[in-house]
Amino acid sequence: MKPYKQITEEDLKNLAKIIDRERILWKKEINEEYSHDELSAGQHYPDIVVRVTSAEEVSKILAYANKNNIPVTPRGAGTGLVGAAVAVEQGIMIDTTLMNHFLELDEQNLTLTVEPGVLLMELAEYVEKRGYFYPPDPGEKSATIGGNISTNAGGMRAVKFGVTRDYIRGLEVVLADGTIMTLGGKTVKNSSGYALKDLIVGSEGTLAIITKAILRLLPLPKKNVSLLVPFPTLEQAIRAVPPIIKSKAIPTAIEFMEKEVIMDAEKYLGRKFPDNQADAYLLLRFDGSTTDEIASYYDSVAQICLKQGAIDLLIADTDERAESIWKARGAFLEAIKSSTTAMDEVDVVVPRSNINDLVEYIHNLQKQTGTRIKCFGHAGDGNLHAYILKDNMTDEQWKNALSVTMGKMYQKARTLKGSVSGEHGIGYAKKEYLKQSMPAEALQIMQGIKKAFDPHNILNPCKVCQ
Amino acid sequence: MKPYKQITEEDLKNLAKIIDRERILWKKEINEEYSHDELSAGQHYPDIVVRVTSAEEVSKILAYANKNNIPVTPRGAGTGLVGAAVAVEQGIMIDTTLMNHFLELDEQNLTLTVEPGVLLMELAEYVEKRGYFYPPDPGEKSATIGGNISTNAGGMRAVKFGVTRDYIRGLEVVLADGTIMTLGGKTVKNSSGYALKDLIVGSEGTLAIITKAILRLLPLPKKNVSLLVPFPTLEQAIRAVPPIIKSKAIPTAIEFMEKEVIMDAEKYLGRKFPDNQADAYLLLRFDGSTTDEIASYYDSVAQICLKQGAIDLLIADTDERAESIWKARGAFLEAIKSSTTAMDEVDVVVPRSNINDLVEYIHNLQKQTGTRIKCFGHAGDGNLHAYILKDNMTDEQWKNALSVTMGKMYQKARTLKGSVSGEHGIGYAKKEYLKQSMPAEALQIMQGIKKAFDPHNILNPCKVCQ
Repeated sequence: MKPYKQITEEDLKNLAKIIDRERILWKKEINEEYSHDELSAGQHYPDIVVRVTSAEEVSKILAYANKNNIPVTPRGAGTGLVGAAVAVEQGIMIDTTLMNHFLELDEQNLTLTVEPGVLLMELAEYVEKRGYFYPPDPGEKSATIGGNISTNAGGMRAVKFGVTRDYIRGLEVVLADGTIMTLGGKTVKNSSGYALKDLIVGSEGTLAIITKAILRLLPLPKKNVSLLVPFPTLEQAIRAVPPIIKSKAIPTAIEFMEKEVIMDAEKYLGRKFPDNQADAYLLLRFDGSTTDEIASYYDSVAQICLKQGAIDLLIADTDERAESIWKARGAFLEAIKSSTTAMDEVDVVVPRSNINDLVEYIHNLQKQTGTRIKCFGHAGDGNLHAYILKDNMTDEQWKNALSVTMGKMYQKARTLKGSVSGEHGIGYAKKEYLKQSMPAEALQIMQGIKKAFDPHNILNPCKVCQ
Repeated sequence: MKPYKQITEEDLKNLAKIIDRERILWKKEINEEYSHDELSAGQHYPDIVVRVTSAEEVSKILAYANKNNIPVTPRGAGTGLVGAAVAVEQGIMIDTTLMNHFLELDEQNLTLTVEPGVLLMELAEYVEKRGYFYPPDPGEKSATIGGNISTNAGGMRAVKFGVTRDYIRGLEVVLADGTIMTLGGKTVKNSSGYALKDLIVGSEGTLAIITKAILRLLPLPKKNVSLLVPFPTLEQAIRAVPPIIKSKAIPTAIEFMEKEVIMDAEKYLGRKFPDNQADAYLLLRFDGSTTDEIASYYDSVAQICLKQGAIDLLIADTDERAESIWKARGAFLEAIKSSTTAMDEVDVVVPRSNINDLVEYIHNLQKQTGTRIKCFGHAGDGNLHAYILKDNMTDEQWKNALSVTMGKMYQKARTLKGSVSGEHGIGYAKKEYLKQSMPAEALQIMQGIKKAFDPHNILNPCKVCQ
């Protein structure tokens, strides 16, 4: 590959012919925010940021970049955790946050068409107000839907409802050469050639840039109940999950939480958690169309939890009560972040029957290495979030601690038949671990796919499989 | 591309070192069945059929074929409709029907691991007996699960539950060069690089050969009710669908049927359909966990149907009654086939709000051209099956009639924002229509993906995008 073109004033002038100069940020006009994401350690500034408002603009910019061999990094709200939206090769950053319009609610086809910059919290509000439901529910509500699609975000409700890919009916994308293309549409089924739409989902901006999405909606479940179950130990809590799944009760979500993380959240939110009697909790949610239907589920789940040693059963059947618990859960990431000087994360996913082994391993790893590691996550779908904390380590110690603990955790996940990332993606930060986790042939195929979409490698270079 | 190697007695000898000679069919030993699928017009015999029993055998055969430039066509039960499992370039046919074992039911992870040759009817029986549910439900129950995965089969229950791709957690596949690879696994989430597993689903044997599948199961819904609703006209029946969807009632299936197709089915099955008062019917199914829950759905749906002009409402709340109706529905394809000399099919899918326009167009097309066309299909998901009948046309007339009617139907589907195939795939028969329906850039990307997986183009050549 020949080296990328260095951006000059000439390029600025040319880009300013494509989009208004006031929507271009150039060198010193670029805010510090654009140089990193929510978690990345280093800083990488793009040379230029363009705040696009249409697919046509994206098309012209990509055609220009492709012709001139300039790398392009797409970016939504910048809430990612693996550096996917960081311009590690500089060049042009395409900021999609101004493309934040709701385009069409189609009630006959149960679809919602949106621009990529719509925030997850806006999306939830929009559909729920109208009696609909967009199931994917990642903790970070200020992420954009474009970012969610790019990482195939999962969230709390994957146990019952699946992940983002399951709710993408169609996409409008711009290819590296500027071609605007529609993939899928409003149809429910599709067996017409290779699944390009499903491939774009989760490709972290390396194959094409998303400019429109047709989302599949469900009717909003009429009733829901949350159940907070305190256990004497985390092991007992997590060991209750397989029998719950086996009981065919179909919870929407099963989260696990430990006392020390809850205390971080209390401190961060300045608000007491509704219970403090136990070291570990399961938090479950059930959705359904009648109270009886839900009751039939949680009654059997309650019995299973008690049999597994639960101390108590707290039913949150009012919105206020449920909200106070889920709000604490939603604040875990920020709460842990504010409790230390720096941190990095591991987002492995294992079969849910193996999550206890993984958590136990990480607890022991913490003891062995003396490095603080905080965990929380999705007990119901096997997706664990483990945060490794820098505290008062030197940079050298920290680098070393990260390398040791991460290496061991990813290795353990592999032996438990898991994958590198459940929902945060690979980006820049995890690509070495992805490479270690898969056969060389799979990596080679991914690189071949990348080449089929983006022969000059201008789209988000150095990410995922590059 | 250099021409494929012609298979010789030498190749037979070499292959007989890999698998038992009695599981090899050579030239005249090859049954006529292997020369076509359920619908393909011409006959194409492979030179050799190997009835494999393990991934290791598939691996060795592919390594041999790849080295010697021999085309390979995978085949399940041969129930396809688009020639995907027909050896149009001769060479080796890999018959997977002996790989028909249930390998593991994992009740903690709600997965079932199977070999590709398991039949859909065996699968349904196996899981339902144990209280589980594998939702995809194509009409052809004697298809293999491997074939279903290869075409991303849909079926009746897609309205509520989605299609095959939504239920594939993991695959073991053999690549063109013989590498055995596992994609995905038992995990619920995965954001670890490009979605190779989802890409293999629906790729019709052109990217890799499936040797194992990990299926996602659901708990078996405790109750179900079917509703048969007679309407004076098909238009009224189909026009009831968008308001049903809009009412948020979540039916599992909504099928439409016309009297003449029902009469074909009666004749074919030698069994009366439970109702004969109307020209058109909607058939709906509801699943749920309590009778109350389901009743709340179908009550509102019944009101909508009556408002749209329904003549009657027949509730099938016993298994026997429901079975007699669904059995007729399941026999439509065979019944139509037995009513004529030859036929070909169109499997377009459109947004469900547009299906009435499509059916009306086809009815008019029938009048205009004088060619008999019979339709049935999935009103709830916009997937129409239209069968063009040869009756007493000459071969020349038939070729011409097919070309005219198909061309027009596919064109109409495009203007209605639909796709070439909802669930039957592209195979050999529909690839020209696929090419017409998509931008050249998309086709080029598909060809690039094909090359990344299969650089020598030995896997199921001349299919899908080739």
